[in-house]
Amino acid sequence: MPELRKDPIIGRWIIVASDRAQRPDDFKMPPVIATKRENCPFCEGKENQTPPEIMALRKPDSNPNSPGWQIRVVPNKFPALSVGGNLDKKGMGIYDRMNGIGAHEVIIESPEHLLSMAPLAEEQIRNLLLVYRERLNDLKNNPYLIYGLIFKNVGETAGASLEHTHSQLIATPIVPIRINQEITGCKNFFDYRGRCIFCDIIAQELEDKERLVLDDENFIALNPFASRFPFETWILPKQHLTHFENIPQSLIPPLARILKDIFIRLEKALNYPPYNMLIHTTPFNMFEAEYYHWHIEIIPRITRMAGFEWGTGFYINPVPPENATNYLREII
Amino acid sequence: MPELRKDPIIGRWIIVASDRAQRPDDFKMPPVIATKRENCPFCEGKENQTPPEIMALRKPDSNPNSPGWQIRVVPNKFPALSVGGNLDKKGMGIYDRMNGIGAHEVIIESPEHLLSMAPLAEEQIRNLLLVYRERLNDLKNNPYLIYGLIFKNVGETAGASLEHTHSQLIATPIVPIRINQEITGCKNFFDYRGRCIFCDIIAQELEDKERLVLDDENFIALNPFASRFPFETWILPKQHLTHFENIPQSLIPPLARILKDIFIRLEKALNYPPYNMLIHTTPFNMFEAEYYHWHIEIIPRITRMAGFEWGTGFYINPVPPENATNYLREII
Repeated sequence: MPELRKDPIIGRWIIVASDRAQRPDDFKMPPVIATKRENCPFCEGKENQTPPEIMALRKPDSNPNSPGWQIRVVPNKFPALSVGGNLDKKGMGIYDRMNGIGAHEVIIESPEHLLSMAPLAEEQIRNLLLVYRERLNDLKNNPYLIYGLIFKNVGETAGASLEHTHSQLIATPIVPIRINQEITGCKNFFDYRGRCIFCDIIAQELEDKERLVLDDENFIALNPFASRFPFETWILPKQHLTHFENIPQSLIPPLARILKDIFIRLEKALNYPPYNMLIHTTPFNMFEAEYYHWHIEIIPRITRMAGFEWGTGFYINPVPPENATNYLREII
Repeated sequence: MPELRKDPIIGRWIIVASDRAQRPDDFKMPPVIATKRENCPFCEGKENQTPPEIMALRKPDSNPNSPGWQIRVVPNKFPALSVGGNLDKKGMGIYDRMNGIGAHEVIIESPEHLLSMAPLAEEQIRNLLLVYRERLNDLKNNPYLIYGLIFKNVGETAGASLEHTHSQLIATPIVPIRINQEITGCKNFFDYRGRCIFCDIIAQELEDKERLVLDDENFIALNPFASRFPFETWILPKQHLTHFENIPQSLIPPLARILKDIFIRLEKALNYPPYNMLIHTTPFNMFEAEYYHWHIEIIPRITRMAGFEWGTGFYINPVPPENATNYLREII
């Protein structure tokens, strides 16, 4: 019997097809492999093929936009939003519009032509997290921008247009609707029960254990109860933290460790799948609310999304999250 | 300058990349073509390869599950939901679940191996709409089921697992989240302004005309102001109608006509694109509210959805809907 499960945060029901549950090898998605190493504009030595860098971690004696860097942040060459100008908010009858002001940056995660976050050294991931933090804090100074979205696409199927491992940051003058819905759901729960729903989820998952992939003193990695996608994995700080850009220094090493661990497990279980990673955090202009909790969502893209799924928000997941947890736990 | 636009119904902001607007030929999606005509289980003569039919429009002297039909409805061979049993609703700590009770039917739209709705004769589309109506009314009798979702996937990219033109019907004991969000948005608008927001949209689009593809006495086809996808097209009845399953007989011929017209235009403009079609309608258990209005959404799948789009509900549309309207209008 398939099961209907409700996401406790935004109230979305999904179908878990527990009858004909699929195993990792049932997904015949071709693995993400390097095919465009030549002429990659993100490799060391090709610095002149990107717009000039916004910041970089580089050797003290090296020059901007030249070799010698570890991580490089550049404007997106084809930005979705435009940096200059004003918002010019306007109603047009029933409709509302504003200028597409915002930032669209690319964070090149390695000078080498790697394809994913998994092969990065832990130290490199720590630096990457520090770069995320720094870029968010910088963009937060722009009074027009109220949200900073960090995401990562790996593999063409997941929307990556360049295979060299990179993250993106889009900062916007609006809050994306899904984040708004999560905040509303969290607020409703808080008004009713006086607690952060993510903190409650963490507590229950630590007790239930059946969807718990990993945990340590500071972080938990789990497959959510109402996973939309096979092997969907979330990483959350155990402590109630609202704004990713305020992550304490002490949490950087354990977050780098658990991220690397999870990516290695996912790549082994699913044979180098395309995937997306997103950081969900509190809007810049919201105070440190008791009810919203930043977290990282990782979604392997091993199933094709049919029309009704994004057209209705109603997903069919062929792998119960408890099965995904079992597979991921067994990997050493 | 790109533009941020707000969907007036659910409040989703999207980016319209009006600077580097793309033309239809910029999308190099391979056209949907027939490659699996042999051994197609939906072709006339292969009736034994599907589960026994639920209903069919067929010649009076023909037998069920044999040739002689025009439209055939069969249970999905791999149903997402299960017909028998009870809901067994249960809380598990913070979580909610129920049994996956529901119907999952396939509506084979033609005995011939066609790939889309466009080549069907208008009369065939009329019959198809009558079949939709009949199946919804039948499933409505099941007290467990409160929503009936009709959708159609064309092309592998759009999630179709068989290429022979068919629709699907999933009836569920829950309301899909996107529909809930639309209903909430409509209710808020109604509470504030006392009118149906879809009726207001229709009025404004008829006046503005720049997103109006077609209209006649009964229906309007438009590219919505905050289109998430290039060439996203909606068809709405001009009259305020809430439940698709109550569509009056007199509206069947004009709806068939405008559907065929729109599909032909989309296929000519975009060279036989993969697409999805969805009918958004009021839940079975809701009365004829003044605020929700059924409509059909058609989404060509010519761009790849990146991670942040479904992870945040924040879409980037490289074709302003006004440009899409121009292209679609020019096609004869």
